[in-house]
This record gives sequence, structure tokens and C-alpha cells, in this order.
Amino acid sequence: MTDQRFWPPQGFAALPPEHSDYENSRVVILPVPYDSTASGWVGAREGPAAIIEASENMELYDIGIGCEPYRVGIHTLPELAPHAGGPEAMVERIEEVVGELLDDGKFVVTLGGEHTVAVGAVRAHARRTPGPSTAAGAALRTGLSVLAFDANADLRDSYMDTPYSHACTLRRALESAPVVQVGLRSAEREEHEFIRERGLPFHTPQEYRAAGPESIAAQLADDVYITVDLDAFDPSQVAAVGTPEPGGLLWDEVSELLETVARQRRIVGFDVTELAPSLGPRANAQLAAKLTYRLIGLAVPGQGR
Amino acid sequence: MTDQRFWPPQGFAALPPEHSDYENSRVVILPVPYDSTASGWVGAREGPAAIIEASENMELYDIGIGCEPYRVGIHTLPELAPHAGGPEAMVERIEEVVGELLDDGKFVVTLGGEHTVAVGAVRAHARRTPGPSTAAGAALRTGLSVLAFDANADLRDSYMDTPYSHACTLRRALESAPVVQVGLRSAEREEHEFIRERGLPFHTPQEYRAAGPESIAAQLADDVYITVDLDAFDPSQVAAVGTPEPGGLLWDEVSELLETVARQRRIVGFDVTELAPSLGPRANAQLAAKLTYRLIGLAVPGQGR
Amino acid sequence: MTDQRFWPPQGFAALPPEHSDYENSRVVILPVPYDSTASGWVGAREGPAAIIEASENMELYDIGIGCEPYRVGIHTLPELAPHAGGPEAMVERIEEVVGELLDDGKFVVTLGGEHTVAVGAVRAHARRTPGPSTAAGAALRTGLSVLAFDANADLRDSYMDTPYSHACTLRRALESAPVVQVGLRSAEREEHEFIRERGLPFHTPQEYRAAGPESIAAQLADDVYITVDLDAFDPSQVAAVGTPEPGGLLWDEVSELLETVARQRRIVGFDVTELAPSLGPRANAQLAAKLTYRLIGLAVPGQGR
Amino acid sequence: MTDQRFWPPQGFAALPPEHSDYENSRVVILPVPYDSTASGWVGAREGPAAIIEASENMELYDIGIGCEPYRVGIHTLPELAPHAGGPEAMVERIEEVVGELLDDGKFVVTLGGEHTVAVGAVRAHARRTPGPSTAAGAALRTGLSVLAFDANADLRDSYMDTPYSHACTLRRALESAPVVQVGLRSAEREEHEFIRERGLPFHTPQEYRAAGPESIAAQLADDVYITVDLDAFDPSQVAAVGTPEPGGLLWDEVSELLETVARQRRIVGFDVTELAPSLGPRANAQLAAKLTYRLIGLAVPGQGR
Amino acid sequence: MTDQRFWPPQGFAALPPEHSDYENSRVVILPVPYDSTASGWVGAREGPAAIIEASENMELYDIGIGCEPYRVGIHTLPELAPHAGGPEAMVERIEEVVGELLDDGKFVVTLGGEHTVAVGAVRAHARRTPGPSTAAGAALRTGLSVLAFDANADLRDSYMDTPYSHACTLRRALESAPVVQVGLRSAEREEHEFIRERGLPFHTPQEYRAAGPESIAAQLADDVYITVDLDAFDPSQVAAVGTPEPGGLLWDEVSELLETVARQRRIVGFDVTELAPSLGPRANAQLAAKLTYRLIGLAVPGQGR
Amino acid sequence: MTDQRFWPPQGFAALPPEHSDYENSRVVILPVPYDSTASGWVGAREGPAAIIEASENMELYDIGIGCEPYRVGIHTLPELAPHAGGPEAMVERIEEVVGELLDDGKFVVTLGGEHTVAVGAVRAHARRTPGPSTAAGAALRTGLSVLAFDANADLRDSYMDTPYSHACTLRRALESAPVVQVGLRSAEREEHEFIRERGLPFHTPQEYRAAGPESIAAQLADDVYITVDLDAFDPSQVAAVGTPEPGGLLWDEVSELLETVARQRRIVGFDVTELAPSLGPRANAQLAAKLTYRLIGLAVPGQGR
Repeated sequence: MTDQRFWPPQGFAALPPEHSDYENSRVVILPVPYDSTASGWVGAREGPAAIIEASENMELYDIGIGCEPYRVGIHTLPELAPHAGGPEAMVERIEEVVGELLDDGKFVVTLGGEHTVAVGAVRAHARRTPGPSTAAGAALRTGLSVLAFDANADLRDSYMDTPYSHACTLRRALESAPVVQVGLRSAEREEHEFIRERGLPFHTPQEYRAAGPESIAAQLADDVYITVDLDAFDPSQVAAVGTPEPGGLLWDEVSELLETVARQRRIVGFDVTELAPSLGPRANAQLAAKLTYRLIGLAVPGQGR
Repeated sequence: MTDQRFWPPQGFAALPPEHSDYENSRVVILPVPYDSTASGWVGAREGPAAIIEASENMELYDIGIGCEPYRVGIHTLPELAPHAGGPEAMVERIEEVVGELLDDGKFVVTLGGEHTVAVGAVRAHARRTPGPSTAAGAALRTGLSVLAFDANADLRDSYMDTPYSHACTLRRALESAPVVQVGLRSAEREEHEFIRERGLPFHTPQEYRAAGPESIAAQLADDVYITVDLDAFDPSQVAAVGTPEPGGLLWDEVSELLETVARQRRIVGFDVTELAPSLGPRANAQLAAKLTYRLIGLAVPGQGR
Repeated sequence: MTDQRFWPPQGFAALPPEHSDYENSRVVILPVPYDSTASGWVGAREGPAAIIEASENMELYDIGIGCEPYRVGIHTLPELAPHAGGPEAMVERIEEVVGELLDDGKFVVTLGGEHTVAVGAVRAHARRTPGPSTAAGAALRTGLSVLAFDANADLRDSYMDTPYSHACTLRRALESAPVVQVGLRSAEREEHEFIRERGLPFHTPQEYRAAGPESIAAQLADDVYITVDLDAFDPSQVAAVGTPEPGGLLWDEVSELLETVARQRRIVGFDVTELAPSLGPRANAQLAAKLTYRLIGLAVPGQGR
Repeated sequence: MTDQRFWPPQGFAALPPEHSDYENSRVVILPVPYDSTASGWVGAREGPAAIIEASENMELYDIGIGCEPYRVGIHTLPELAPHAGGPEAMVERIEEVVGELLDDGKFVVTLGGEHTVAVGAVRAHARRTPGPSTAAGAALRTGLSVLAFDANADLRDSYMDTPYSHACTLRRALESAPVVQVGLRSAEREEHEFIRERGLPFHTPQEYRAAGPESIAAQLADDVYITVDLDAFDPSQVAAVGTPEPGGLLWDEVSELLETVARQRRIVGFDVTELAPSLGPRANAQLAAKLTYRLIGLAVPGQGR
Repeated sequence: MTDQRFWPPQGFAALPPEHSDYENSRVVILPVPYDSTASGWVGAREGPAAIIEASENMELYDIGIGCEPYRVGIHTLPELAPHAGGPEAMVERIEEVVGELLDDGKFVVTLGGEHTVAVGAVRAHARRTPGPSTAAGAALRTGLSVLAFDANADLRDSYMDTPYSHACTLRRALESAPVVQVGLRSAEREEHEFIRERGLPFHTPQEYRAAGPESIAAQLADDVYITVDLDAFDPSQVAAVGTPEPGGLLWDEVSELLETVARQRRIVGFDVTELAPSLGPRANAQLAAKLTYRLIGLAVPGQGR
Repeated sequence: MTDQRFWPPQGFAALPPEHSDYENSRVVILPVPYDSTASGWVGAREGPAAIIEASENMELYDIGIGCEPYRVGIHTLPELAPHAGGPEAMVERIEEVVGELLDDGKFVVTLGGEHTVAVGAVRAHARRTPGPSTAAGAALRTGLSVLAFDANADLRDSYMDTPYSHACTLRRALESAPVVQVGLRSAEREEHEFIRERGLPFHTPQEYRAAGPESIAAQLADDVYITVDLDAFDPSQVAAVGTPEPGGLLWDEVSELLETVARQRRIVGFDVTELAPSLGPRANAQLAAKLTYRLIGLAVPGQGR
């Protein structure tokens, strides 16, 4: 029944089966509609569906990077079911599923959901990356580095009675790999002091602009996992997040950094999280879709270039 | 990759493959996101996706009619692509696709989109129903009858320069089969006179309440195609339509009529149209989903009862 | 430049000039986008535009009452400018303008805006109705009666520092004419006692259902001004009001009462107020438009019947 | 700084301190903005704030039951903080806090949040009600009965990996006290069979209409805890719920049952849950506020009558 | 009935009759609420009304260009009725109407609706511009050039079964006149190759910034028709479009280019299209209104400067 | 009943009592939900509640200025009740209340509401500032200067029949103190001429960028009252205002100017006005909250630095 009279089946970028069957696809999209630890404004669980729907309106040639990322094959999984018993069990489920996909040779793109989903994905990647995933390792460019886009420090050790709150995401990630953060402009005093004491490479937008993308890339190990909390963007670019903070990054700035990292390091996986579609215009989902698509193009170059 | 950690794939009622693969399914859902002739308020093209999304939240046992309709198998096709060249070509595409599905032995459920989509579906069914599809035939209970739920007469011969406008739907349907309409409460004078002159069995909600469901069913031939323009419902039940009219039908009234028709006639196909999700609360999509599900249960009884 | 390739110019019911020029029109629509005394939820100033926009989607033959009300001519004025200096001056402006229109032989339909706008309209009508406008006069059927649809008593003598608050509308109206109210289900204790002490004919929906429309009509003088605060309707019919109260009137109930009054008395003018479009679905504006259109048909019967 | 130039401080019904200080208040409102186990559409965590905001627009004399419920004093607590570690810990927190309030002599009104919050409240009440809380006890009218308004059976033993899902609420409640349910119209087959096997008094709207409120009240023990999942209402009354189901209860039906129970039994506590404000018009919050206020008036009669 | 107590009648910029009667007006606004070929997100048919409504809130002195554009007279036509039979007929209707207005000596401003409406307008202007409208002619500065603002190439030869899809707008326009495009950042591979092969002057935002407005203006013939698809703007400026693309043009950039072109060439007409108001904040309509007003001021200088 | 299981009580920044009781607080937030003179799009009365709600999601350490502003104590008053009798009485009420708070030694932050509320606040501050509040005084740096952020000139002497319209705010403010304005890009010709004739220091965004923050600060007296109409921001930053104007100020630009003024002058009070939350994404309220918080940190430095 698949013929030209029908739209392609739903899935990231609305690809026909020859470019989206699991077997044919180098890339797998894992939608994780989870937001149970969210405080404040709600709705990140609707993010994956909104990003995928928006992606179905994209044109498939990315002028900005001059290629057609879909040619490596992009398979979209059904949504991962939330574990309602608590975030720790959910993080374990994500780690397990991402790990199985990695072991199957896939490049995994996790779509949140709240930022917590990154913890499971980071763990799965870190466990499979050779070399010590420590700050020292990053300096030697062995092991895995995490490049995090975020407005918030996310460095609380526990929040709302759990260490797996969205507010603890980067604190948890740090336990798996060194983290370089860009976009910081909101934190509690304790988090700020933690950054200072540890000398963590967490950069405000102003600091990023002053340092430039090359400088950020230089702080990363050879293998890089990228986690994107969309609130790193300025609210003029993405308002549909639970904790919008003025003074954030612009599309061109983020894109330039991603292109630099892709040229100089190996992007082994990434996630795009925290889109709460009802909190902003639909254009925000379109940005998230295009960001995901471009990151695929940068991370998994193929015959499409 | 299908396992218990994932939600089922998207599709009507979120059914697992054993109940939703094309081969296993007696029922096929055909989403038609078309609203190009719409005047007034817009958005019926978003109706099919909204109904399917809502259906994924339904519980699968229908208490009201005491069965699990999904057990006959319900396959959801990808969306039929709009033909942007004009409504006549689109109606032809729908007739063609519905016809192929009927010829393949399927029970077809068309989800609009604007009410115009019913014209193609009615034609495909009428062409395949033995016996004369005329008012005389309906009296003899041969051929096909159309049972139409609608607030508007939809009897213009042409509107906005085309005979395939949503405002002409029942005028076009009448060319294929006799039509019994329920829910009428808005018309132009010319349409009103057309009804009177032809003696068409078009019933206002008050007339329906006075006559009762048995009386309506008695006006139908043995084979019945049901076309639902959701504006037949009172706006308190469905506000998300382009032409909401106060004084419409209630859920229990519609349900009772459908149950009566199902007991006394053979429902051979149906459509649910004109949901414009952004014009009302999400609960409206839920009603449309449940209506669709109940109609499947009534029209295609299976081992699930 | 007016030709068939264009929609008719904007205005109530989207009428062509021959049915909407000021000179040709028996009925004049006066939009009053005023809501400066509103407390609670806002937006009644957007009501007139929403009602007029919705009316442009109406079909012009009203099946329910069997006529085409537009045939008497319906002219739509530009919006009356709010007097931002305070509600008293605004009420005076409304009284002045309505008076001029009445003196010019027009039937005036005032579209609010908050319910306060009725005070000016009632005053203009009362001043031009012969016979004593008192409860005694109403018993003798001389002078003017006001038939008010409202969920609230609106009988405060002053509210938020002004006697011209929307919460004082019927208290002010009582100073011009006796008031029969239908739909009451919210009041302060003082208002409730005022009703009891004065023996005011203010009816809850339950009381109206028990008494029937004939009984209400019998309480009115020969000349009746009708003021509709749309919150008299049940929120299932009209949610888009500042003070929605459960347990209100249904469309058929209101329509039946209006038809009865039209048969037995003379409707000399009316207003429809308090639609705050953003607080509910667009279908609410459609109800308000159809209510307005039906009231015109009932109050100003013409050759269209 | 409290003077007439200011609105009263925020809190249920916007009461001045003499009617809302903790010490002066017989009734305590406990807002619980928790919805972490919600599947489908989201937003019940915004329910308590929306109900309280709407209550600030209410008029304080309740015409329907002829009293001023606020006179017994209504104190509004700050929002209970969600325990993000999982629903079991949250249920325990609720039970603990409600228990402390009961031990302090307060009548507790819990505002959800998802329906799960009722589990903690029921437990706290059941533990403090003398007599066996069993079906046998209810027949003898000793112990506590739970009267549940709900569209869904909520009888799953576990859902989404936890026994404390919103879909398990009444299954958990049954462990504390016998449950009489009204409004049922959606269930899984297993739940339906559980009802039949146990002979649970779960009533569809049709069954309730046939039986009447007296019959329902007769099934309850002397002490009654009422739990309201707002989806028991028809979506025309409350669309702003995660799982709207057509064919539900109307305001007058619910109100009549509550009045009957109040006359014949002792209401010892209640909750109002599952309002997800963004899914429907603001009028839904107003209904929830008035329902809460009326239930206070019925359950805690005071000098205000 | 026009007096100071009323707002001016509706129409672009809410002008009094002396500045908006057809006869007095050099400029005519032609609203075309057409979006029947739209794919993806819908609602451009509501664009013209939203722009006009927003324009009624503008202040009439444009500080940015130091003049009062309204002084040349701006007449607002009623909305052009969509031809529902298909886009080709609609394009012909637009060409016909625009042609009549041009022949009557008016400066025509077309407000879409989808971008397709530009095809008719371009044809009407091209047919009335002396000199060859070819790329060679443009180099000689004879004939008409089209300056297109657009995020998409719009160069498909046919899309969704019609050559008159919004996705073919500039391909069709190229058949009438040479096109210079600014804002490009989304295309299919085939479109990208078409641009390269033909050497079309289509500029990404980065290329525009590098080249500067003078360079763009130099590519145009003496007579310039400007077509604005609002998605050329960055979504932070205009989110309310069907295909928002990150990385677009800013207000100041567009304004500077328009001012440059106005100084160096003759702007003979323009359109502003693709505003779908419900997809973004109302501020987007305000931008579109101000853009329209400024373009009038630039293209039709009058005594107001 | 305040314990760790509860969120803090509502109020700016969700502070615990030790940092928010009136006595402990150097800063007082005065919410003024007034918008009765608003023309155009509505809803500024919902601004104060939205800003306060958003502030409850802020993190309390402000990285941008390196301090915790809350440490000086921030008390949130209940909302000032609108005087519905007209704006003059409301302005007087505001002046009176602000004056009492100043006399009590508080630093007052007024949250609008429409910009008119600034008039009362400016008057209260001007009356309590020694030295002549005139342009000459400002040059000598005695008396009070007003630093106004605004897109509109707000210099009409009267509008919509009152001198206390939002469109007259700065004209009225000028009667109390010299005004320096930043953000200007919309005005009527008369206002523009008034600026030129008087030589008022009203700066467009372009002029501000050219001059730099130091230059603006140099135009101010030692004591500065800051009034923020949020439409001074670019609509990409704040769309939720009644009169959004493209081409406005960016967050970093505003922040830099405020930091400069704080360093070089004494900020004695400020207001943040014109947020109409329903007209834009929630992120706009977050910006307003953070702006308010940062201004507190800049104006009232404490032990928190």
C-alpha cells in the first residue's frame, strides 16, 4: 500500500522505507517522552513527537552544511515508555536501550523529554568508549567528553528528593565523563561555587563568544557526546522550554560550534531535550528538528555529502 | 526492537502489530488531511492526526457496547497526500484508493479532513453495492443508503466556483445514493427549498428526537454508509469544527442511533470528518476517536464481543 | 470595485450593500468594545469583533424560526470608541448614541463589551418608551420592561469604587425600568437579600424550567428591552465569559423563551454582552452571532418570513 | 499593610485573614501539584493553582445550597512539594501531611494534581475512622466509605511499572476502604472483569440516572470520603482533563448526589483532582472551584447557613 | 454616523475616509485569504485580516523613515474570494484583479495568504512593464525585476500535483521576470542544483550580509516588484509561518535593504505573504503591518515626507 | 505549617518568610493589575501575577551580576485593587500607596499593569527627592531623573478622552521630573515634533547603540527612577505586549545600560509594566521576572554580593 498517492509513514524526516528501515539505517532516533521530575512549567514529554512532526516538514538538503544527512538512513523507534516508578528506573531503562542500540552498531539520537534522559544515554556511551573518561583523559583526548548545551548548571547533587532530577543532570553526567558546558546563565550559589572549586569548563554565552568555537573544541577528548538542553538557546530562538533564560545562544553560534567540533573531534552520539511544545510557537520544534538533522549530517557523514 | 519497554507504534488505538498489520486487519483507517475548499475557520487537515493521537489514549474495552472492537484488527495507513490541483482530482484519488481497499476485502474508515472527502468514499462504496442506489431502492432496502450526520444541508450545487466544495458534499452524495440526514440546523434558503421540493429526509435535532432512532433506521436501505460531519454534534460536545452551530446532537443521541442502525442494517463503511483540532479543546478529538472506535465495534462485530 | 470575485465587505452577516447600507437598514449594529471595569478574567472588548466575524460565516436562512432576518437590512457601525476617563462617561456616550439611532428610526443592537454597556442602552430606550417604567407599570403592561439574561445578580450598588461597574448593571437598569432576570446562580448575600426584600423577579435556571417561558413573558410589559450577559448560558454553551458559572441555561431554553416573548410582547431593542473570545472556543462567538441574528429575526419581522 | 485599597491575599476564595488564618479555619486546603505518573496529555500539576485562582472570582454566597461556606474559615496551605523520586514516596508524604492536619482537628480538602494524590488522603482518613473499613462494614454503616467520581475504573493493579499510577487509584483505595464509584465509562477488559467478579458498586452515568442519588447514598457507610476525578463530568462540563470521555455526568447531577450524601451521611474529607487547565477553557477551573466550595458548604455546615 | 465618538472604519491603518476612499487613494490593499495548496502547518488565509487588524494599532508617523505614508491615501478592498476549484484559477483571478487596479492607476499591495498569490501579482505587473523582463534585461535595467524575500527556494516545477503550489512560486515568477532572492536557507537538492546551473542570484542570509544591500540592489532592473514570504525573517522575528527556518533575516537587515532599493530603483508593487497568525504571537502580525506600511512609505513617497 | 515538605508561599522569588516578611524586607513588590485605559490588545492586568509566578522558577544567584539579590529581603504585597471609576483616581491611589511605602523606608518595585501605573509611582518618588526635578536640575544632577524604556513616545497630552491614558504616561511623568527615554521607535507626528521642539533626550535603539550606555547615564540626575514599558524590548525578546514594535532593544543591551546606571547613579525605585502574558510565550514573563530581580540586585546592593 505504499505508493505516491500517500505521504511517507510518520518518522523523523518522513523518509521512505529504503532510507528508514531499521536494517538500512545507520542512525536511530529514540524518542523518550519523559518529564516526571520536571518542576515549573510542564510539557517536555510532548517534545519528541513535536520534533518528529516538525521534521516531516523539513527539506532534506541542508544548505548550511551542503549535504543530505538522510542518506545514511534514519530509523525512528516507537516512543520509549516512561517508567512511572521513579526517575532512577527510567534512567536505567534508557541506558539499557541505548546500550543495545550501540552494540547493534547504530548511531543513537535521543530525543527528550526532560534533560534527565541524557544521564542514561551518557552512561551507555561512556561505558563503550575506550580510555579513561576523566578530565585528565580529556586533556589527553582519550575517553569520552560530554559537550553540554544548557542555560542551567544542572549541578545539584539532589533536587526534590532525588539525585535523578533534571536539575542534577550534569552532576550525574560528570560521574561518567568530563563535561564541557556552553550557555550557562542560571545557577544556585552552591552550583556556582562547585564550578569554581572544581574549575569546571562551564561557559556563559559571553565567555563562549570571547573564547570562540575552536577554544571549546580544544577542551574535548577525541570522542564527544553532545547533550542539548534547548534552553541553552536564547528564548527568542526557543521559548518552548520549562526554564527560559534571557541572554542565550543564537542559532548561528550553536551551529558554528557544532561544525567546529565535528571537524575536529568524533561525535559519537547526541540528544536534544527539554522542548515543551505548548510553551512556545511551533517554530521552536522546527529549530529542534533542524538542529537534530544537522547534527546527524555533521556526526555521520555519508555518501550524501 | 518491539518490546515491552516501548509504547506500541503510532496508529489508531496504538495496537501492537498482531492487531494492526495490514494483513491481519479487517478494518483499515484511511487518514485524509485535506481541507483546501474550507471557508471560514481552518484546520480540518489536522483532524486525522489528532483523532489518531487521541485514540492512542483510549482504553480498548468499550463499556458502552460491551466489546473490544480492536480484535478484528485495525490497520492505519499513512496519510493520503492532498492533490493540490483542486478538489475534483482529490475526490477521484479518494474514490480510487477506497475502491482498491474495498476490493481487497477491507472495511474502510476514512478520517477527514473536510467533509468533501466523503464524496469519494461514498462513490467507491456505491459502485460496489448491488441493487439500485436510489430513493426507490432505499424504500425496497436494496442498494446503498447514506446516513449523514451534519449541521449543514451541504446541498449547494456549487460553491466558491467548484461543485466539490465542502458545502456541496451531500448534493454530490445524492448523485450516488439516497441520503438520510440528521442534525440539520443551518442552510441557505435555496437548500431549504431543495429539501422541501425533493422531500429529502433531512432531520433537525428536534425532528430526530421526536421521531426516534427506529424511525430513522427504517428510512435506510440494507447497506448503509455513514458519513459524519462532526458539526452535527452540539458545540458543547464538539467545538472544534469550522462551522459550529448551537442546538446540535448529544453524544448519547448519536450513539443510540448508531447502535440502532447497526442492529437493523449493515454498516458497510463510514467516515468521520471536519475535526479542526485547534478550534476547540483536545477532548473533541477524544470524542471523535471514541466515535470511530465504537462505530468499528458496531459495524464489524468480531470475536471480541 | 464590488463584484463577485470579492467577499462582501466586513459587517454583521457579511451582507452586500443593498442589505447593509445605513439608509436601507431597519437594524443597526452598534459594537462597543468596552471592558474597563472588568474584574477577574479579561477580554470582553474583543467580543464585538468576534461576534461580527463569526456572523460572516452564518448561513442566512434561520431554520429554527423559518425566516431570513437580514432582509430588513442590517447596518454595522464602526466600533464605538471607549471613553477611557471612566465608566460613567462611557455610559453617557452609549446612551447618547443609542438615543440618536432610535430617534432616527432604527432598531438598535448593542454588542458588548462588558455588561455595563447595557446601562446606556436601557436608559436610551426607557426614555423613549411611553408609560411609566415601574414595576406597577409592568403589571399594567405599560412602559418598558427589561428582560435580563445573567448568571449574576449584578445588583451591587457600587463595586470597585464606581456605581457603573459591570457588577452593578442590573441595579442601574432597575433605576430606569423593571427588570425580569433569568439565569441567576451567583450573588453576594447582600444582593440575595435585596432580591428577597424587593421581591424582584430574578429566576434561577431551575426556577425558569419550573415556571416555563409563558410565565416569564407574563411578567413583562408590552415593550421589552432584552439584555443578554452571555454568562447566563451554561459554560458548556458559552465558556468565553469572565465569570462562567456551572448550571446555566441551554441554547434551546433561551431560544424558546425569546420566541415566546417575541410572540407575546414587542421587543424594542437588545444587547449581547460579555463575550471574551480568548477564554473559550470560537464556537462561542458563533453562538453569540446566531443568537443576535435570531433575535433580529424575532424582534424585527419583515418580508423575509 | 492590609487595607481596602488592596485585594485580599491569594488563597482559596480570596478570604480576608479573619476567615483564612490557620487558627481560625475549620477547613484547610492542601494543594498538591503532582502529576508525575500521568500518561497521555499533561498538566494536572497546574490544577491546584488554577482552582485557587478561579475561586478568587467566586461570589461567596452559594445560592444553590443557600449558605456562605467560607464562614467556617478556609485556610490555604502552600503547595505540597512533589517528591520526584517516585509516586510511592509522594503518596506517603500526602498521607503524613493529611494525617497531621486531621490530628489537628482540621477538615482537609486536597486539590490535585493527578488522581493518585487521593490514595494518600484516603489512607490518612481511613486510619482515623473507627469501625471496620470493609464492604461488610459499609453495609453496617461503620468505618469509612469512599465515594469516587471517575470516568475510568482506575483498578489496574500496576501501570507503567508502578502500583501508584493514576490508573491504579481506586485499586489502592479499595485496600483502605470500600469504594462506591459513579461516572464509569472507560475501562480495560481486566478491570471490567474485576468489577464483575467482586461485585463492586461502580456505576455508569446511565446506571446512576436509573438508580438515583438516594440509592447511591444507601451504599455508603456513615463516614464518607469523597474523591473527585473531574473526568467523571461530561467533557462539555470539564474538558480540561487528561482523559476526557464523552457521555459523562452533568453539574446538576453531581450536585444533587453530593447534596443527598451530605444530608444522609457525614462527609469527613474530600479531594478534587485531575484538572489540567491548559487542556480546556478557564471555565473548567471555575467549575472545580465552585464544586470545592459547595462541598465545603455541604460537609462543614456552620453559622453561615 | 462617522463622528469622533467612533473608531474609524476597519481597514489598513484605520484611516478616516478622506485618506482611504478608493478615489482618494494612490495605494490599494488587496487582501487575498488563500492557502489551499499549503502543506504542513496551516492558517495563512487568516493572514490578511490579522495584518489589517494589527495595522489599526500602528502609529502613523514612521520614525524609521521619517514620514507619514498614509498621506498618499490607502484604500483597503474587501477580501478576494478564494477560487476553490484549484490554484490555477485563483492565480488567474489575482492577475486579473491586480491588472484592473494597475490599469486604474493604483499602486497595488497584495496581502497573502500563501506565497502562490504572488504569481498572479507578478504576472500583472510584468505584463505592464515596458522592456524585456529577462535576466539580460535586468542587467540593462530594463523591464521588471522581482526581489523575493524567502527562506525556501520555491523552485519546484510542480508540487503536490500542481505547478501552482506555494512551493513553485519563484519558479513560476521566473517565467515572468528575473528574480533576485534573499533569505535562502532551505531547499531540495534539485532546487539547489537548479540555482547553481542557472546561476540564479539567490542569497542566503550570510551571503546577503557579506554582499551588503547595495550589491543586491545592483542586481535589479529599474522597476522592481517585491514579494515577501515572511519566512525570510528569522523565526525570532516572525514565527507565525508555515515553514519557519532558523537562521533568517532580522528586521533591521530587511529594512535597510528595502530602503536601499527604494533609493536606487522604482518599486512598482509588492506583496506580503505567508503570515499564519495562529502559529506565533500577535507581534508577528504587527511586524507584517509595519513592514507593509514602511514599504508603502518607501515606494510611494508623497507630501507626507 | 511551614516545613520542607511544602513549597515556599507564593510571592516574588518564592522566598521563605525570613527573607520575605514585610519587616525583614528592604524591598517591597507592589503588584498593580490595572489596564483599564488600554487600547488595542489586552491583558496587562495579568502581568503582575505572571511575573511573580515566573519569578518562583528563578534560580536565586544572578550569575550576570554576581550576587543574590534576595538577601536584602523582598516582600510581595497583595495586588492593589483597581479603581474602576477612572484612571485619575487609580493614579492617585498608586501615588498614595507608594508614598506610604517610601515613608516607611522601603524600596518600591511596582509591577504593572499598563504603563499608566508609572505616573503615580513617579509622583511619589519625585515628591520625596530633594532638589529641583527639572531638566536644569538633572544637568546639575540634583532632583530626580526618570529613565524610561519604551517603544512609544507616550507623549500625548490626552488620549481617548483622558490625560491618564497609557499613551500619555511620559507626558505626565515629565510634569514631575525630567525624562530620558530609550527604545523609541513609534510615535505620532505631534509627539515627534514635541520631542524636537523641547529637545527631549528620547533615543531610538540605533541612537542608543551609537551613543552607548555611558552617554545615557550622563544625562541623568543623581537619583534615578526607572520605568520599564516592556515594549522597549525587541518583540523577539518580549512579544507579550499590547503594542509590539519591531526593531527594539535586546536583553544584553538593556542589562548593560542598567548596570552602567547602577554604577554611576542611585536607583531609587522602578517599575516593570505592560506584560500582557497571553500575547506571547511564557518565556516573556520569565524575562520580566529576571529583569526585576536583576534591577533589585543593582539598585539595592546588600550583603549578598
